Amino acid sequence: MLIFEKARELAVIQSAAEVIGWDQETYLPPAAAKHRASQLAWLSSKAHELATSADWERALETAVSADDGGDPVVTANLRELRRSFNRATKLPVELVARDSVASSLAKHAWADARTRSDFSTFAPHLATLLEIAREKADLWGYADEPYDALLEGFERATSTAAVAGLFDVMRPAVREIAALAVANSATHAPGLPPGPYPLAAQQKFNAQVAAAVGFDFEAGRIDTTTHPFCTTLGPRDVRLTTRYDEADFTSSLFGVLHEAGHGLYEQGLPSADFGLPSGSSVSLGIHESQSRLWENHVGRSRTFWEKWYPVAQEIFSQLDSFPLEKFLRYLWRAEFSPIRVEADEATYDLHILLRFGLERRMVNGSLAVADVPAAWNECFRDLFGFAPVDDRHGCLQDIHWSMGGLGYFATYTLGNINSAQLFAAARKDPAVAAACDRADYLPLLGWLRKNVHAHGATLDPAELMRQATGGAPSTEAYLTHLKSRYL
Amino acid sequence: MLIFEKARELAVIQSAAEVIGWDQETYLPPAAAKHRASQLAWLSSKAHELATSADWERALETAVSADDGGDPVVTANLRELRRSFNRATKLPVELVARDSVASSLAKHAWADARTRSDFSTFAPHLATLLEIAREKADLWGYADEPYDALLEGFERATSTAAVAGLFDVMRPAVREIAALAVANSATHAPGLPPGPYPLAAQQKFNAQVAAAVGFDFEAGRIDTTTHPFCTTLGPRDVRLTTRYDEADFTSSLFGVLHEAGHGLYEQGLPSADFGLPSGSSVSLGIHESQSRLWENHVGRSRTFWEKWYPVAQEIFSQLDSFPLEKFLRYLWRAEFSPIRVEADEATYDLHILLRFGLERRMVNGSLAVADVPAAWNECFRDLFGFAPVDDRHGCLQDIHWSMGGLGYFATYTLGNINSAQLFAAARKDPAVAAACDRADYLPLLGWLRKNVHAHGATLDPAELMRQATGGAPSTEAYLTHLKSRYL
Repeated sequence: MLIFEKARELAVIQSAAEVIGWDQETYLPPAAAKHRASQLAWLSSKAHELATSADWERALETAVSADDGGDPVVTANLRELRRSFNRATKLPVELVARDSVASSLAKHAWADARTRSDFSTFAPHLATLLEIAREKADLWGYADEPYDALLEGFERATSTAAVAGLFDVMRPAVREIAALAVANSATHAPGLPPGPYPLAAQQKFNAQVAAAVGFDFEAGRIDTTTHPFCTTLGPRDVRLTTRYDEADFTSSLFGVLHEAGHGLYEQGLPSADFGLPSGSSVSLGIHESQSRLWENHVGRSRTFWEKWYPVAQEIFSQLDSFPLEKFLRYLWRAEFSPIRVEADEATYDLHILLRFGLERRMVNGSLAVADVPAAWNECFRDLFGFAPVDDRHGCLQDIHWSMGGLGYFATYTLGNINSAQLFAAARKDPAVAAACDRADYLPLLGWLRKNVHAHGATLDPAELMRQATGGAPSTEAYLTHLKSRYL
Repeated sequence: MLIFEKARELAVIQSAAEVIGWDQETYLPPAAAKHRASQLAWLSSKAHELATSADWERALETAVSADDGGDPVVTANLRELRRSFNRATKLPVELVARDSVASSLAKHAWADARTRSDFSTFAPHLATLLEIAREKADLWGYADEPYDALLEGFERATSTAAVAGLFDVMRPAVREIAALAVANSATHAPGLPPGPYPLAAQQKFNAQVAAAVGFDFEAGRIDTTTHPFCTTLGPRDVRLTTRYDEADFTSSLFGVLHEAGHGLYEQGLPSADFGLPSGSSVSLGIHESQSRLWENHVGRSRTFWEKWYPVAQEIFSQLDSFPLEKFLRYLWRAEFSPIRVEADEATYDLHILLRFGLERRMVNGSLAVADVPAAWNECFRDLFGFAPVDDRHGCLQDIHWSMGGLGYFATYTLGNINSAQLFAAARKDPAVAAACDRADYLPLLGWLRKNVHAHGATLDPAELMRQATGGAPSTEAYLTHLKSRYL
């Protein structure tokens, strides 16, 4: 089908850009950045041209008209291609260009404002980005509120109200669990025996663990970057990165487990359909469920470490006199940090609830930009019991808004919720549960392959969750998990 | 100027392909190769489309008509862009496609024939490639013989007769020097103390040497591949590779010095003109002169090692009891190998003279494909004194012909000739000579920057040599160098 050929060509272009972006983060010499940007800009303009062309639209409409519904995957692919086409073509070129200039200026202004902890110089940029976001929302359209249209870009076919509903349910419970976990941790969590945990030994250990949970090194690798990520350069080419701290081997390991969760999803997508919706991930909330599942439900579990701690002790001799029970208390420590990226499992969602609430009010127009710092600090105090010392540790800490990434934050907590619900559902399969209980996670991976990965983006996230778990997205399993781990 | 903008856009596309090609050789997971090929094919088709388009031609002709000759660099750029355009557009699409299919089939047939040492299964492919080469030569046009048109693709504005003239002068001298060097080596060259020379220590040493000769790590890196190479991913992004042998640290080091020679040339091209002829290397024979200069004239010199051998001895303790004089005899050992890629400085050119002579006769039609193995063995015996044991060690050893790389081989020896002539000319500058004599090579690099690199491709190779050295390309300096080192 012509439109599928075009979609595959688009994936070739986009994956070429991913190669170049990956190299930029991993191995780029310092002086090379400028030309690299022009390579990425060229590829992205070619991708945009193709995906918004009249030829594309004609091929798409021809295929839609000819579709007799005989193959549900074809029908789903056409539906999703049309959704993307509509979203891509509803914005006039003038707005896209204005958005790109505004984000670029805002990113610089944000970096500078953060350094000086001075919100006032970032404020006009944020105001411009919010105006643009509302313009985009109007053009894309929405059912209830402008924020819906932004959220849709990251988590399709849900609504702000539905997300807020889940978040409202969990807020008091998470606040309570976090407070107790932090108090408990302050008196009981030991420090890790001092390093160095040599980098090369960490790499060997991480690779062994990643392979054991099913990451396929024939079709992927692990490299080193300041900020860990996972990117897909082709249907059989998934690159993870992590960072190393020689004082704490668990830092790089959990980076690998988190990114390997994303990578296992990418490796599990139907590779023959690369470039089609049926060969693509469905949403950030589902993607994040995979990373969180492997990082937290597998990687922070007692069973996992009953198997792997002796291996770690073999490799890192300073662990010899540090028993497993102490190590687990170290792993499960909780602390209130003002900084999201330093937050642990017990406190992470509080950061997201805060951002989601503020963003929604900002986008919908009920919170003025000038009032953001005060609102941030008030919400933060309400959730954490104290206020950040300054805006650098408060509303200026994240890059997302400055990049125009409004609507993104919710997907982190949706990922947590989904991860618990999927893990609990998988464990209802006795073979999966029995294997997990002896730290053999390949049956679990098999279950995820079948119930999540194999669908690509043919089902909406909520429908995928329903088919996989038997119920609508719910915070129940997640709260049960947090309680059982932290209380 | 519109045509210069287009040329720069072409360079963006081609350099994006270089990033992807570099990744393919360095870090590609095994299962990823297939999709990678489709990314490269897409980029190469876009590059070809752009560089042969009617728009391109119109922009070029407009600029040529408007050029008043006021800026010689502009005039040279237009002349070279027109030369490339003519070469690219003189071949009909049908022939380009036929050539690409034939090469692809031939490469597989060659790999298989080499494994089995059976020339007969490769012969029909070689015959097809030769026919295509003659067709291309006819379309490109030539002054004296079809081989001229092929050579032009790698070494512009020279002639087969001119190259043959240089090669005829050097043949008896090189044969004599090689034979004496091999005989001398057999009785006097010691072995290197046994390894391991640990990989990480080699990397550190190599990087120290590369930085000392002026390779800019802000705008480049060194990675590891099976076959060392140098590739340019952008105006400030030059990637070298080498391979490691823990039994001999000089193997990776000379890989680095050779590729750093290419890299210093690339880093020395006017970066503001990236994508224009004035920002591009001029020919393979000049490129190879840079690699050979740093590898052989600098890196295999006594002065170089008077400085660096004590450093190597610090790093590799087994060298402690191996004095510099013995090490130099080890470095300058010579041996007759049937295999070109294993040949040393004293014997390398014999391999090239052989190939150039055979290729010329094959292309011009005076040597039939069926007679190639016998002709190879006869020429080989004449130059080396013995015949290869089989075709795998003879006429089947190189990949070049199977890739349609007819006309390429001569540039290796042209590089050797040019390297000696340039090095001798540079040393006529007293400051360069004095610095070289204390193993400070930055003034030498400065001389090359000014006399070679800064010109880009604005001068023909022979003219560049004349301006830089004061004389036409000649074998004199090279033969003097070989004699002084090996006799």
